[in-house]
Amino acid sequence: MTTPVTNDYVRALDRQHVFHSWSIQGALNPLVIAGGEGCRLWDHDGMRYLDFSSQLVNTNIGHRHPKVIEAIKAQADSLCTVAPATANLMRGEAAKRILARAPAGFSKVFFTNAGADANENAMRMARQFTGRDKILSAYRSYHGSTGAAIVATGDPRRVPNEFARGHVHFFNPYLYRSEFHARDEAEECARALHHLRRVIECEGPAAIAAIILETIPGTAGVLVPPEGYLQGVRALCDEFGIVLIFDEVMAGFGRTGQWLALDNFGVAPDLITFAKGVNSGYVPAGGVMISQPIAEFFETRFFPGGLTYSGHPLAMAAIVATLDAMAEEGMVDNARRIGQELLSPGLQDLARRHALIGEVRGMGLFWAVEFVSDREHKTPLAAPVIAQMKAAFQARGLLTFTVENRLHVVPPCIVSPAEVNEALAILDEVIDDFSRRCA
Amino acid sequence: MTTPVTNDYVRALDRQHVFHSWSIQGALNPLVIAGGEGCRLWDHDGMRYLDFSSQLVNTNIGHRHPKVIEAIKAQADSLCTVAPATANLMRGEAAKRILARAPAGFSKVFFTNAGADANENAMRMARQFTGRDKILSAYRSYHGSTGAAIVATGDPRRVPNEFARGHVHFFNPYLYRSEFHARDEAEECARALHHLRRVIECEGPAAIAAIILETIPGTAGVLVPPEGYLQGVRALCDEFGIVLIFDEVMAGFGRTGQWLALDNFGVAPDLITFAKGVNSGYVPAGGVMISQPIAEFFETRFFPGGLTYSGHPLAMAAIVATLDAMAEEGMVDNARRIGQELLSPGLQDLARRHALIGEVRGMGLFWAVEFVSDREHKTPLAAPVIAQMKAAFQARGLLTFTVENRLHVVPPCIVSPAEVNEALAILDEVIDDFSRRCA
Repeated sequence: MTTPVTNDYVRALDRQHVFHSWSIQGALNPLVIAGGEGCRLWDHDGMRYLDFSSQLVNTNIGHRHPKVIEAIKAQADSLCTVAPATANLMRGEAAKRILARAPAGFSKVFFTNAGADANENAMRMARQFTGRDKILSAYRSYHGSTGAAIVATGDPRRVPNEFARGHVHFFNPYLYRSEFHARDEAEECARALHHLRRVIECEGPAAIAAIILETIPGTAGVLVPPEGYLQGVRALCDEFGIVLIFDEVMAGFGRTGQWLALDNFGVAPDLITFAKGVNSGYVPAGGVMISQPIAEFFETRFFPGGLTYSGHPLAMAAIVATLDAMAEEGMVDNARRIGQELLSPGLQDLARRHALIGEVRGMGLFWAVEFVSDREHKTPLAAPVIAQMKAAFQARGLLTFTVENRLHVVPPCIVSPAEVNEALAILDEVIDDFSRRCA
Repeated sequence: MTTPVTNDYVRALDRQHVFHSWSIQGALNPLVIAGGEGCRLWDHDGMRYLDFSSQLVNTNIGHRHPKVIEAIKAQADSLCTVAPATANLMRGEAAKRILARAPAGFSKVFFTNAGADANENAMRMARQFTGRDKILSAYRSYHGSTGAAIVATGDPRRVPNEFARGHVHFFNPYLYRSEFHARDEAEECARALHHLRRVIECEGPAAIAAIILETIPGTAGVLVPPEGYLQGVRALCDEFGIVLIFDEVMAGFGRTGQWLALDNFGVAPDLITFAKGVNSGYVPAGGVMISQPIAEFFETRFFPGGLTYSGHPLAMAAIVATLDAMAEEGMVDNARRIGQELLSPGLQDLARRHALIGEVRGMGLFWAVEFVSDREHKTPLAAPVIAQMKAAFQARGLLTFTVENRLHVVPPCIVSPAEVNEALAILDEVIDDFSRRCA
C-alpha cells in the first residue's frame, strides 16, 4: 500500500468484509488496533492504549515479546506445519515443558487449536475412558463455542446452541450471589458440595463420565472457589468414578500468580485443558494434559478424535519460547507479587471508596469488579451504563474486559507497578465520574 | 541444544510426551520430520522425502514459501494476536481476498481456527437463519472432529462420537461402489438425487436447516460428483428453503485446479467453509464465506458463536501472502495443467497396467487410486497390505496419504513435471512389486 493506512480505512474494510463473534453485525463499531508491545497497543492514527484486558485474557506475556517473536521466525525458516501423525522436535519440547508444570502423574499432552477443542477432546477422552455418557458442568462457566463445548458451557450463550446431548448443569459456589442462601464461605462451600452430590445422585453416578469445571470460573466472574470446594469435588469424583476435568484455558499459565490455577488449591484433576496463556495466543494452540491412567487406557485403545493442526510446529515453537521466557523472566512471580502488593489493595481501596462497587474478588492478575446500582440489594448496574463506562476507560487510553455488570481486571503478567497505578487512577477517575452520574 | 538432534531423540521425546490423533497410542512409530521446502521434506538423519500428501492435503503452496514466511515475520514484528472484536488491517485484507474467489453474492467472512469450527459455525448460521434443527450430510464425508462437526461427518469415526443431535445422513453418489445399483454416471446422479429428495421428504423439509456437502468428498475417496448432481442438490435446497453449505476445507484453494472446487461445477451454495489451502496451514486458520441474504439476516440479529482467535492477525497475514503468491505464481493454473497433462494420464496408465488398481478418479491435483484384490468384485485390498505399500513408498522417499484401500495422490499445487514423473515411477515400481506379492 502506498497511501498510509488509517483507522477509517481499516474500519471500513472490516465492516465491508468481516463477520464478528457474538454480535449483531449492524451494531458494530470496532476499535482499530494496528500494533502493540508489552502492555501497550496503538491504532493507525496515533492513539495508544494500556491493555488491561490481555485481549481475551490471553496475552499473558504482553505483545511482541522478543524471545517468542524470534522463536516464531526461526521455526518459520525451518517448517511451519506438519502432519499430526509425524514426530516433530518442537512438539515434543512443548509437551515436555507443559507437563513440567502439571501436577505429579500427568504424562501426555494432546494438542488442539484452542480452548474449545481442548474441552471437546477432554470430554471425549472421559467418555471413552469411563464408557459413560453424561458431562456435568457449572451454570456459571464458559468452555468454548464448538458443538459440545458450548453445551457444556453454562452461561446464556449456551441456550441458542443446545444441539449436543448428555450435558447437565449444576450451581457452583458464588457467595456474593449465593444460590444456596449461605452466609459465609464455609457454608457456601458445604452447601454447593451437597448440591453437587444431589445432582450426581439424581442423574445417576453410573451415567456420569466427567465433571468439567474451570478451576476459577473466568468469564462467569472470576469466581475463586471457597476453601475446600475443589477438594470436595475431587472426593465426589473419586467416590463415583467420575473423571475430573479442570479447564485452565483462561486461568492457567501465570494468570493467578501460579503456573496453573490449580496450584492455588492443591487439587489434581484427571485431565487439564489449556490454551490462551500457554503461548499468549501468538499462534493459535490449546490442548489437554492427560494423567497416567487415562494415557495408559489409550495405549491399547483407539482414540476417536483428531485435527490437522494438532501440535502445529509454529504454535509449538511459540509455546516453548513463551514458557521459557516466563520462567527466565519470573513472570509468574511478578503476577503474584503485583497482584498481592498492588492490584488487590488498589481494587479493594476503590471498592471502599465507591458505592458503585459491590464486590472485588480475585487473585494474582485475575480480578473482577462487580458494579451495582444498590449495594444492599446488589442490583447489577445496567448493561448500557457498563458499556458507557468501558467507552470512558477506552477514551482515557485504558482497554478493559467487561462482562454483564462486571469489569475484569486482567493485565498481562509482565505488568509493571507504574502501569497498575496508571490503570487504577483511570479506574478511580471514571468510576468517580459515573458515581456522580448514577447518584 | 548443544548435541545434534537425531531422529531417535525426537521420536523418543514424542513417544514420552505427545498424544496423537486417531490412534492407538501404543501402536505408534511416527515418521520424524525436521524441515521442508517446496515439495520436499527431510528428517534429522539425512533422509529426504517427496511430499505427495501435502501433509493432510493442506500445504498447497508447498513448504517454506518465501513470500509467506516473510509475511509471517513482518506481522510477528507488528502484532501476532488481537481480540476478535477489534478491527485489524490484515483481517480485512484477508476477507477481501477470500471473497474475491467466492461466487457472486458472497459478502462476509467469519474466521475460525480450522475446518471443524468453520463447519460448526456454518451449521450454527444455517440453524439460526432458518429457525430449523436438522442438518443433512453424506455418509461418505468428513467434516471435522468437534462436537457437531464429527456427527455431521458420515465416515465411521462418527460412531463413537454421536453426542450431537439433529444430524441425518444420506448416500452420496459413488458410481464405482453405487448404493443405487446404477450402471452409469447419469443413472447414479438421477438416483442419488431421488434418494436425497426422499430423505428430505421423510425427515420433513420444514425441519431441515441445511445440507452440508464437501464439494468433492475428500477423505471419503475423492468422489467427484457426476454432472448435474450439485445442480440437483441446489434445486432441492431452493425448493425446500434449505441452506446449502459446501465444505471446501480440503478441495478449496487450488487443489482441483480451480480456486474453489465449486468453480468446476458452476453451482453456488449459501455458505462455503474453508481452511487448509487458504494459507496452506502455515498458521492455523479456517472460516465461513457468507452469502448476502445470510449476512443480511445477522445485521440485526445476534450471532451466538465466537472464538478468541477469530481473524488472528498472524494467520490473516499468512492468508494474504498465500493467496497473493498463488495468484502471482499461477499455482492454480499449474495444478490444473499438471493434473490434466501429466498426473491424470500417468495414473490412468498405472491403472491400465496394474490389476491391483480398481479405479483412478479425480481432477487437478486431487486424485484417488482405489486398490482391489479382485477387479471383478472390486474387493478392497486389505488394510495391512495398504499399510505395507505406504511403508514401501516411504522407504523409497515418497510420502503419501492413504485411507482404507486407497492411495490419495495430492501433491502441493507447485509440483513440477519432474516431481510428478519421479512419484509416478515410485508408484509404478512399488505397485508392480505388490502385484507380484499379491498374485
